Amino acid sequence: METIQQTERTRVRRLPDRGHYERDVINAILDEALVCHVGFVADGQPYVIPTAFGRVDDRLYLHGSAASRTLRSLASGIPVCVTVSLIDGLVLARSAFHHSINYRSVVVLGTAQAVVDREERLAALEAISEHIVPGRWREVRPPNDQELKATAVLRLLLSEASAKIRTGPPLDDAADLTQPCWAGVIPLRLVAGEPVADPKLAADIQPATSVVGYARRRAPIAW
Amino acid sequence: METIQQTERTRVRRLPDRGHYERDVINAILDEALVCHVGFVADGQPYVIPTAFGRVDDRLYLHGSAASRTLRSLASGIPVCVTVSLIDGLVLARSAFHHSINYRSVVVLGTAQAVVDREERLAALEAISEHIVPGRWREVRPPNDQELKATAVLRLLLSEASAKIRTGPPLDDAADLTQPCWAGVIPLRLVAGEPVADPKLAADIQPATSVVGYARRRAPIAW
Repeated sequence: METIQQTERTRVRRLPDRGHYERDVINAILDEALVCHVGFVADGQPYVIPTAFGRVDDRLYLHGSAASRTLRSLASGIPVCVTVSLIDGLVLARSAFHHSINYRSVVVLGTAQAVVDREERLAALEAISEHIVPGRWREVRPPNDQELKATAVLRLLLSEASAKIRTGPPLDDAADLTQPCWAGVIPLRLVAGEPVADPKLAADIQPATSVVGYARRRAPIAW
Repeated sequence: METIQQTERTRVRRLPDRGHYERDVINAILDEALVCHVGFVADGQPYVIPTAFGRVDDRLYLHGSAASRTLRSLASGIPVCVTVSLIDGLVLARSAFHHSINYRSVVVLGTAQAVVDREERLAALEAISEHIVPGRWREVRPPNDQELKATAVLRLLLSEASAKIRTGPPLDDAADLTQPCWAGVIPLRLVAGEPVADPKLAADIQPATSVVGYARRRAPIAW
């Protein structure tokens, strides 16, 4: 399995057994996550902004308003960190100390670049749309020239990245196993409710294929 | 209603109608979010790390291993950004361009400080535990001296913070309203599954009060 080269910056030092560097593992976490948190520095202050994203092969795409301060900062070629996290469960131990969270996270480091080629811009926007609602892109009106002009698209190569994963039950001290206290995992997942139609929707229009039974794809979890 | 003073760094510039500065609004989002994403800078590179947190009044608490590079960096008094985001729904418009996400997010800027007072450290750890699983703290063995020594606790004042919220249906261009395409919102929420007992749990122990019917508290949402 292809792995991404560890660097001093991406190697998981605390609890190194939780670190993963296989490209397939990293991609699966990225593809399941709905949004990412983008970190960048302006005037010495770090900022962390949640935003949508998409992936094509080893390229991660971000987008936003061309007028956005965040997008313009990022497009100027500054270092960036893109983090995604999936919360799979709450780990309840018998001691306060050993409580934990089952999660899968990915940290990507690098420098984002503005995408200027029209075809790559359209492919990136399609990837972001399909990342969030698969099948939606071909149901809707595509971007026109004015909308494309108003949209900034950024590319970040997945060349320096690592995943961190915790699964399984609590790891209590042996002396605590006799505590008369329930211990285990509360599984958590993001689920979709019934679609809520736009009040302006014509009465005869049924939910689109992309909407019916919407669910995030999900890797099998070892509790 | 008390508001937090806007600064040039926290004022929401893009779509300013989405910006909120009331302390109650910010606190409610913080309290509902399960984890935060902490941004900091090391050697010019921003890092964004997901982690648990808790809140007591206008103090946000983080914790982690005293051996953690992240915690030691943060405790050295560097600028930090703590962001939480709640994804409430996917906003499906008739055009690709007007797709959006309904969300509630909070960005907190400041400088974290190591908490050294034993009573405040215990109160902070209790707040973090109660933030994630209300009622759990009094069900389990509290931290002992060795565990307390191994745990770093950080305090970040909620003095420079803002919220950003999007709710409601898609906002399509008038010309697109006749598109024969479903439009609306797919609501999303984080839900708990059936608790999974630790394989080491004695057979006669029932799920604790904190575990039965676990659910994140949730603000009413206007779709």
